[in-house]
Amino acid sequence: MDLNADLGEGFGVWRLGDDLALLALVTSANVACGFHAGDPLIMRRTCLAAVERRVSIGAQVSYRDLAGFGRREMDVVPEELAAEVLYQVAALDGIARSCGGRVSYVKPHGALYNRIVRDPVQAAAVVSAIRAYDPSLPVLTLPGSAVYDVASGLQVVAECYADRAYTPAGTLVSRRLEGAVIHDAARVVERAVRMAVDGVVEAVDGSEVAIRARSICVHGDTPGAVALAGAVRDALGAAGVELEPFA
Amino acid sequence: MDLNADLGEGFGVWRLGDDLALLALVTSANVACGFHAGDPLIMRRTCLAAVERRVSIGAQVSYRDLAGFGRREMDVVPEELAAEVLYQVAALDGIARSCGGRVSYVKPHGALYNRIVRDPVQAAAVVSAIRAYDPSLPVLTLPGSAVYDVASGLQVVAECYADRAYTPAGTLVSRRLEGAVIHDAARVVERAVRMAVDGVVEAVDGSEVAIRARSICVHGDTPGAVALAGAVRDALGAAGVELEPFA
Amino acid sequence: MDLNADLGEGFGVWRLGDDLALLALVTSANVACGFHAGDPLIMRRTCLAAVERRVSIGAQVSYRDLAGFGRREMDVVPEELAAEVLYQVAALDGIARSCGGRVSYVKPHGALYNRIVRDPVQAAAVVSAIRAYDPSLPVLTLPGSAVYDVASGLQVVAECYADRAYTPAGTLVSRRLEGAVIHDAARVVERAVRMAVDGVVEAVDGSEVAIRARSICVHGDTPGAVALAGAVRDALGAAGVELEPFA
Amino acid sequence: MDLNADLGEGFGVWRLGDDLALLALVTSANVACGFHAGDPLIMRRTCLAAVERRVSIGAQVSYRDLAGFGRREMDVVPEELAAEVLYQVAALDGIARSCGGRVSYVKPHGALYNRIVRDPVQAAAVVSAIRAYDPSLPVLTLPGSAVYDVASGLQVVAECYADRAYTPAGTLVSRRLEGAVIHDAARVVERAVRMAVDGVVEAVDGSEVAIRARSICVHGDTPGAVALAGAVRDALGAAGVELEPFA
Repeated sequence: MDLNADLGEGFGVWRLGDDLALLALVTSANVACGFHAGDPLIMRRTCLAAVERRVSIGAQVSYRDLAGFGRREMDVVPEELAAEVLYQVAALDGIARSCGGRVSYVKPHGALYNRIVRDPVQAAAVVSAIRAYDPSLPVLTLPGSAVYDVASGLQVVAECYADRAYTPAGTLVSRRLEGAVIHDAARVVERAVRMAVDGVVEAVDGSEVAIRARSICVHGDTPGAVALAGAVRDALGAAGVELEPFA
Repeated sequence: MDLNADLGEGFGVWRLGDDLALLALVTSANVACGFHAGDPLIMRRTCLAAVERRVSIGAQVSYRDLAGFGRREMDVVPEELAAEVLYQVAALDGIARSCGGRVSYVKPHGALYNRIVRDPVQAAAVVSAIRAYDPSLPVLTLPGSAVYDVASGLQVVAECYADRAYTPAGTLVSRRLEGAVIHDAARVVERAVRMAVDGVVEAVDGSEVAIRARSICVHGDTPGAVALAGAVRDALGAAGVELEPFA
Repeated sequence: MDLNADLGEGFGVWRLGDDLALLALVTSANVACGFHAGDPLIMRRTCLAAVERRVSIGAQVSYRDLAGFGRREMDVVPEELAAEVLYQVAALDGIARSCGGRVSYVKPHGALYNRIVRDPVQAAAVVSAIRAYDPSLPVLTLPGSAVYDVASGLQVVAECYADRAYTPAGTLVSRRLEGAVIHDAARVVERAVRMAVDGVVEAVDGSEVAIRARSICVHGDTPGAVALAGAVRDALGAAGVELEPFA
Repeated sequence: MDLNADLGEGFGVWRLGDDLALLALVTSANVACGFHAGDPLIMRRTCLAAVERRVSIGAQVSYRDLAGFGRREMDVVPEELAAEVLYQVAALDGIARSCGGRVSYVKPHGALYNRIVRDPVQAAAVVSAIRAYDPSLPVLTLPGSAVYDVASGLQVVAECYADRAYTPAGTLVSRRLEGAVIHDAARVVERAVRMAVDGVVEAVDGSEVAIRARSICVHGDTPGAVALAGAVRDALGAAGVELEPFA
């Protein structure tokens, strides 16, 4: 199993989350590429730190929206979206290579991540950009995402969230609904272990849903989040789950 | 001899210059990389057109300054400048490769271009970024530039300007001084031919100065400029000068 | 009747449309406020020129989207959208006052314009911003817009488009459908006159629809567009329609 | 005596400093206006909080440089700089008025602050912008600044720094030199009291220099800084110095 988290999400003087603490826990780092966060210097420092710790580097591509942190859906036309994704992946990969690493997967960020789960047009634009840059790069998304339908041979990898509620259909409960995010640390840890060991999660109606995922996403934007990520990592280790990058 | 010009300098809905007309004339295209101009879609279209016409693609890297078109000097610290240059070169190269081409040289833009002619610190930052990305990429600058002093093995290529006045020392007359730009088309053409054939230019005091350059820079931001660039190209051809990319 | 057009839509070195030609034709200028176009210097020059020609100044507020020219819908939360609109109106009004004029109405731009026609939440956010800044400022929108429903006492003014096809219900035919934009100059001029004189327009099914509007919007981003705007102005004059700012 | 501090210096999701803690201590808040930090929503929230606490609001205008936090000098031409300053002051004032307050002074930020201390051309551009917006607004700068020479009737107010070393000439020791910033809390507090009560400060050579200032600038970007600002405030109170806004 792989553990992934968002990193390098500062900009200029501003910082977000504790990158170094997370790098000690995860096996894959989704590094911001400058469109929602992450200036070139932050990108370079983040890549250097990831390479030192043998953490896999992913391109966390986004809509162009610093003011909204890439959390606002945008009706970007496919040709433009593809060019924007290609630009970001290439920029990060050049920086990663200068640090002795390389981009080994792509994980879209925020509103773009959610959009391509259900919109095959934008999903195809993202896929075409990755294929144009390096068709061997997998894309990280949700199980059942529209990305699978338009992958055209691109490798698609599923991830799951230990701190999110699931519907009986195996999709995430919308953040707008109560109970969408699980705050109880013990439950989050227990769910992570069941996801990794048994491949199942308990849905909001109490039923068990199969979750086939090669990576678990953890968060690190608060001190509590980092501690929780550490607890998840420890529990997985105690359960005999080997942690290694999926890419 | 090589002819180079700035291309892809629009942004979003805005356009600058006649890229297609210039691509029929020049052998090297300095393509904007998004920091002073050039969004990813414009970059991709410019690269596609350059590849089709077998025009060499250069990364026209800049300070981050869309509002000032990269024409304002900035005291960027070297580490940050290096990361910004690396980001831009890598982004354009990824796009160029997706079009069947590649970045084959780097030409800094505007205020950064002028700054590194005389500032070894920023020059060294630019050099380190290029070396970190691909040490085989030459950088295009003025003869006598500080870039030569800090090149550390990087190939440095000199260019000249047929429409700019030169001092007896072989440097450009500052644009702030009268007569810095030569507007008479016949004189510009004649100077281009002498630069290419004899390796000399007449300085403002009437003396002849040696100009050792492998590329002549032409402009394309006005209809008159494109016509003049065409006249330069024709005159060079008539004088038996073979035009080919330097990189 | 009032004639309005978008002005000041350049940014940095880039220009869009012929502002001076339009200022000789229109009675109201929708001046870009920096979020989709229009840097502070362009805003100041546009306001100066408008004041000189006694053209009314409107704040052409937009989503924050220079790269997309404000043409991409964004799910900005109401509180943030209201603050952004307030920021833009205030900035332009300060500049206009320094030129001897003032902002006398607000016309949202592009995707925001279209969004608030049908979305009462974003419409209410725009209304609240205008009311917070100056409740005497009218907002320009389409007849039947959701803005009317949430105006809370704010003056709402309707405008029409002589070069756009209308449905029998009096709404604009979507630009995605064929025939949405009328390119025949004579028809555009004729429709403008009927709109102003008779208050009607011929819909796409041949029926006549009532159009109650106090302003006609014209475009100026191409030489042909400016000529057409001039023809509309001349025809209105010949038909005895007096042109004056609505605000 | 007045105590001023920089506030509202976040952007989007990012935050900097503890605004609420500072608002309980200072009498004047230098609120970022969007060019180096501060989006419209942050500006509005900061103004609301300042109005509630009866803290005076100043426009903290800056070069357009989010990536560099306005800390990099830029050779902006005067006409453009004036328009940019006017834009920022007007935007913040509109927002402040919507919160029941108003901008009552201007304090340039970062590199612009330092530049106009010694550059009369950029100083005059800032002055002209303030005069164009509201000639009754004072500008906050250092004693001896070039702003005094070009004020043209604008009120210029001097401030001092309790945590910065001074030369015998009464100017700040450059941050590039060792000892430029005083970290010992007791010394900072003692210097603040002497500045306020006696109007003098001990320079780096041990001599006493007269400091005529109506405001002391304190910082709040670290927990220690906020505590130090509180200690300065308490010590001033204990010394019988009345704290009130200068504007």
